[in-house]
Amino acid sequence: MSNQPEEKVPILPGIDSPADLEGLDDEQLQQLAGEVRAYIIDVIGEIGGHFGANLGTCEIAVALHSMLESPRDKILWDVGHQAYPHKVLTGRRDELRTIRKYHGLAPFCSIPESEHDIMGAGHASTSISYGVGLKEAMRNGIGEDGRVVAVIGDGALTGGVAYEAMHAAGGLGTPMVILLNDNGMSISPNVGALSSYFQRTRLKPGLFHAREGVEDRLTKLPLGLGKRIERLGPELKSAIKAYWAPGLMFEELDLAYMGIIDGHDVGAIRRALHEALEADRPVVVHVHTVKGRGFAPAEEGGLAGMEEWHAAKPGSIVNGEPAGKPKLVPVQESDAPAAIAPEILEKPEPKAAPPQYTQVFSDAIVSEAEADPAVIGITAAMAGGAGLQRLADERPEQYYDVGIAEQNAVLMASGIALQGGKPVCAIYSTFLQRAYDQIVHDVCLQELDVTFAMDRAGLVGDDGPTHHGAFDIAYFRSLPNVVVMAPRDEAMLVHMLHTAIGHPGPAALRYPRGVAEGVELPAEAEAVPVGTGETLRNGERVALLGYGSGVGVALEAADLLEAEGLRPTVADARFAKPLDSELIERLALGHDLLVTVEEGVLQGGFGSAVIEHLEDSFSNPGERARVLRIGLPDRYVTHGKPDLLHEEVGFTGQSVAEQVLAATGGKVKSG
Amino acid sequence: MSNQPEEKVPILPGIDSPADLEGLDDEQLQQLAGEVRAYIIDVIGEIGGHFGANLGTCEIAVALHSMLESPRDKILWDVGHQAYPHKVLTGRRDELRTIRKYHGLAPFCSIPESEHDIMGAGHASTSISYGVGLKEAMRNGIGEDGRVVAVIGDGALTGGVAYEAMHAAGGLGTPMVILLNDNGMSISPNVGALSSYFQRTRLKPGLFHAREGVEDRLTKLPLGLGKRIERLGPELKSAIKAYWAPGLMFEELDLAYMGIIDGHDVGAIRRALHEALEADRPVVVHVHTVKGRGFAPAEEGGLAGMEEWHAAKPGSIVNGEPAGKPKLVPVQESDAPAAIAPEILEKPEPKAAPPQYTQVFSDAIVSEAEADPAVIGITAAMAGGAGLQRLADERPEQYYDVGIAEQNAVLMASGIALQGGKPVCAIYSTFLQRAYDQIVHDVCLQELDVTFAMDRAGLVGDDGPTHHGAFDIAYFRSLPNVVVMAPRDEAMLVHMLHTAIGHPGPAALRYPRGVAEGVELPAEAEAVPVGTGETLRNGERVALLGYGSGVGVALEAADLLEAEGLRPTVADARFAKPLDSELIERLALGHDLLVTVEEGVLQGGFGSAVIEHLEDSFSNPGERARVLRIGLPDRYVTHGKPDLLHEEVGFTGQSVAEQVLAATGGKVKSG
Repeated sequence: MSNQPEEKVPILPGIDSPADLEGLDDEQLQQLAGEVRAYIIDVIGEIGGHFGANLGTCEIAVALHSMLESPRDKILWDVGHQAYPHKVLTGRRDELRTIRKYHGLAPFCSIPESEHDIMGAGHASTSISYGVGLKEAMRNGIGEDGRVVAVIGDGALTGGVAYEAMHAAGGLGTPMVILLNDNGMSISPNVGALSSYFQRTRLKPGLFHAREGVEDRLTKLPLGLGKRIERLGPELKSAIKAYWAPGLMFEELDLAYMGIIDGHDVGAIRRALHEALEADRPVVVHVHTVKGRGFAPAEEGGLAGMEEWHAAKPGSIVNGEPAGKPKLVPVQESDAPAAIAPEILEKPEPKAAPPQYTQVFSDAIVSEAEADPAVIGITAAMAGGAGLQRLADERPEQYYDVGIAEQNAVLMASGIALQGGKPVCAIYSTFLQRAYDQIVHDVCLQELDVTFAMDRAGLVGDDGPTHHGAFDIAYFRSLPNVVVMAPRDEAMLVHMLHTAIGHPGPAALRYPRGVAEGVELPAEAEAVPVGTGETLRNGERVALLGYGSGVGVALEAADLLEAEGLRPTVADARFAKPLDSELIERLALGHDLLVTVEEGVLQGGFGSAVIEHLEDSFSNPGERARVLRIGLPDRYVTHGKPDLLHEEVGFTGQSVAEQVLAATGGKVKSG
Repeated sequence: MSNQPEEKVPILPGIDSPADLEGLDDEQLQQLAGEVRAYIIDVIGEIGGHFGANLGTCEIAVALHSMLESPRDKILWDVGHQAYPHKVLTGRRDELRTIRKYHGLAPFCSIPESEHDIMGAGHASTSISYGVGLKEAMRNGIGEDGRVVAVIGDGALTGGVAYEAMHAAGGLGTPMVILLNDNGMSISPNVGALSSYFQRTRLKPGLFHAREGVEDRLTKLPLGLGKRIERLGPELKSAIKAYWAPGLMFEELDLAYMGIIDGHDVGAIRRALHEALEADRPVVVHVHTVKGRGFAPAEEGGLAGMEEWHAAKPGSIVNGEPAGKPKLVPVQESDAPAAIAPEILEKPEPKAAPPQYTQVFSDAIVSEAEADPAVIGITAAMAGGAGLQRLADERPEQYYDVGIAEQNAVLMASGIALQGGKPVCAIYSTFLQRAYDQIVHDVCLQELDVTFAMDRAGLVGDDGPTHHGAFDIAYFRSLPNVVVMAPRDEAMLVHMLHTAIGHPGPAALRYPRGVAEGVELPAEAEAVPVGTGETLRNGERVALLGYGSGVGVALEAADLLEAEGLRPTVADARFAKPLDSELIERLALGHDLLVTVEEGVLQGGFGSAVIEHLEDSFSNPGERARVLRIGLPDRYVTHGKPDLLHEEVGFTGQSVAEQVLAATGGKVKSG
């Protein structure tokens, strides 16, 4: 292994479970952390995967597993893409080579994968709440008692639920440790350090009762300090406040605070944890780490370096060194802050390769924003991934990044709309779930002119079940006052974004991850008449009605069926709400079988809307075509390359054709 | 009017719009606030409605409208049940008598109702986000420029989205005022007061740069204070921290802070606002108010008094005095903190009146908790309303109130479940929407043993569209791994709660607001086999399949239809997921018409599940009964008594019977 300290017997090969860390001293543990780092650089450099964040947590993972007895003690990794060192230390060292691959290790923590993965993760900001629940259950005598540590990044701390959880922990006095893994990307870096004296004394219980009788205490302070402080007033106050600043917000929430600890010094982390775990109350241990630690191109490249190496492309590192110019990685990201986790789009390397949907959206919203200054793009910490980076660069005044705070993103959009603006919330389908109530209560009920542009709709691939966009069709179409649509290709995406922005009320559009269809982009965007579909091929007997990415699958199926002697009609529904009822009735009357194809759950989805309409419209169900609904199954789908997943769930032209043949019985060939 | 200052010419009768406040001096404004209060006591005492919170905001509303030019300037009332004084001052004085009544004034702020109601409200914690959106749009030149004030209670500040919004305001430096209306119910009351000197100087811009070069400043402090502070260490620090405590959390978020202002002194509020509105940055103005102010039984009764008079029962106040013993009010509540907003259940005054559903749940969960210490009840600030007050009183160790923080409630439940506990989240259907992502990502995906007990499912009545529980059937049934059910009566509620808790995975049950059916309660709860319905009456031609409260409506309809010579089958589906497919197929084969009845939106709802199943099961749709789905319409339903609303939307036995007759044509009588 490269990057490994010289002249020392390697420790990592002997670590098959956390118990193997027992008896190692600080120096050996520090060495082990270095070996974990070198191992991750080797493996992820070769196979690709989340990179920078994991290099930052090697010492934290080693320190935690050296002091705690997992799984009796609970180590909770927020989001989970900082958990590779944890995976390496908990019996999954060799399997790391399979991470994010189909049937390989999960990209985040996964309960079924290991008894050491206490909670499932993927969406940010949840670990403190889980910790409070676990520890409070223990305090109630439920299950085996143990210690609880939630490891959460500074980015994840911008999510409101993390604040709700700190409020709960403080209010309940839940004895647990919140290990704030601060790589300085979100929390203001200029908070300054505290003296070790204050750090050590901060946990003494007496201090936490000091608030009472404050006036009294102030006057009794030695040297008449109380009065002098009052006289000196704001200057002193500001100075003192700044001096103690890092922990004050936490202490306001009744959380004890220790910091700032060097997150790459195993001994320092262990000493802090030792104290924090002894305290019979919630303690924040504020640890400073460097993203990309130990990998020079990331560490020394400043912000740009960290961004570049947030995730590594397969084969991008050889012998611990970048293999040629580092390449940005076109994988979907978890919800880390945009500054450190843009999803960068691969530039088409051959010349005529189609663009990615995200890229098309990115250009289209810039055009819309240029044409109308009321158009405002909003992202929740995913400027790159959600296609707003170009807008941010070119028209920063028409762009907001609110951090990992989807609820606030949508409410801010409501406020902007009330003022006459035309906000576009560009948020992945899976993350927009966080703002469901705001969509119901603050956009649709208020009939505000907010557009939702949902990237990563459908199966996203490597990031797996936490990140698939499976439910948005079903939940959006059950809400009043909203137009729900999906483009079949990148040209239609341009038109639909224009349609949504022009529509004077709530509108949602969804489009998949990845490369678009390769059709020509329109010179000018044109509004699509709301509630109209489009017939793409006229045929007979069987009608395939696609929605969004389902149209391409339907077309593929039609090609295959034509080879079988069947000539199906193919149509693009375009809108899931309002439906093109005329089109649907025509298809249902003129064919024996109507097949709906959508990349979302079938329960309550687009196909369900179609049969609702037909059931309502035909007093005799026998008069119309039977409907076969094809979409995502009623289960959470695993991770892996989208092609494999689409095959697994039957969302392919081949599978649709087979299902059509099965449904039409032997009649096809004879047709 | 009673309670009115003597010997002064009344001002309120001349106030028909905020413009009429112009030219009034502090004394006159103070008088006006008193008159507004007296008027509200009179009106609400007579007709009933939210009470205590509105008595607390009279001076705030007067101060704001005397300084701002609404609607150009934006006054945002969080939640909105503190906005009666605002309504009185903005041209709706006389209409206040219609508040919460069908076609009367809305219970909260409502955009269509008045140009002065800038945002719609009902769910808590949204106003700061709206304010950021409005002001940022203005800064971008969108719409007319104006000043922005968000009035938010201390209870609402526990919601994570409020924190997200403060984070945004601080990060963007949005010039707006956050008026924290603190009645001391949630924020610790012992924070102490600040000297007026610090208040006034706090806004000086220089101070906000003071953090830089702190070390330097400390050593340069006069009198060698810097060194002494370090020597004195924690004691001084704690004292100083406590002294300045109220604002530190806000200042950590880069919000300027002013406080604590007497919220019943119009002049003091105006002076603070004057400074805050001048500052070119976000400013928190911390105002202390007394809930129930000016109404002795509320104000002097301490916590109990405030609780008792949070809302007033019609006719409970005569001439400013309680009419006999004050009575607790059986109205549904908005999401104010539990401590001040229990939904108290009227004791049955005649002897045999049925209990309320909430009461039945309340007793049932105590029984479950007694039988199994792993059962844990969780509420989000609605102990009374959601039926957990008895559990809180009798088994406090098995009970958690997390504040207005539904996301954290559900995640804590996940943590408790991971430890082997059996958490029951008792949250209104409408408020559980806040935790949709946690339900998807942290309960259903993780297959954790969490029970959701959704009170107020269906149309809740007076609180209107923000509070109706219309969407839970649709969104829950689209999720994998969850059992979705609804009891038809209080006996079944007892059984289903037991079923959900016993089921080793996610389970959700919903039940309506109000009085139950009056059936006998079981001596012992028994598990209902998951996915089984129940046939209640065997008939012919028409089958009525109810879900939850739809069963009662179906039975009523059946009675009416029998009088018309039709004898329908009536069945209780009991589960929306998994469906009793055998029962549904039997009904569909044995009848001409299958009618589903549910108190939820039809798009993707229970009826939709039924037709999905039939479409999948019958290769020829003509072989089975046509399905007529009855439920809530595809629009938001207004406020008013539930009976009126049910009639409006056709969710009554009468309406169902009529629709059945229409669907069966002339065939009925001849049957």
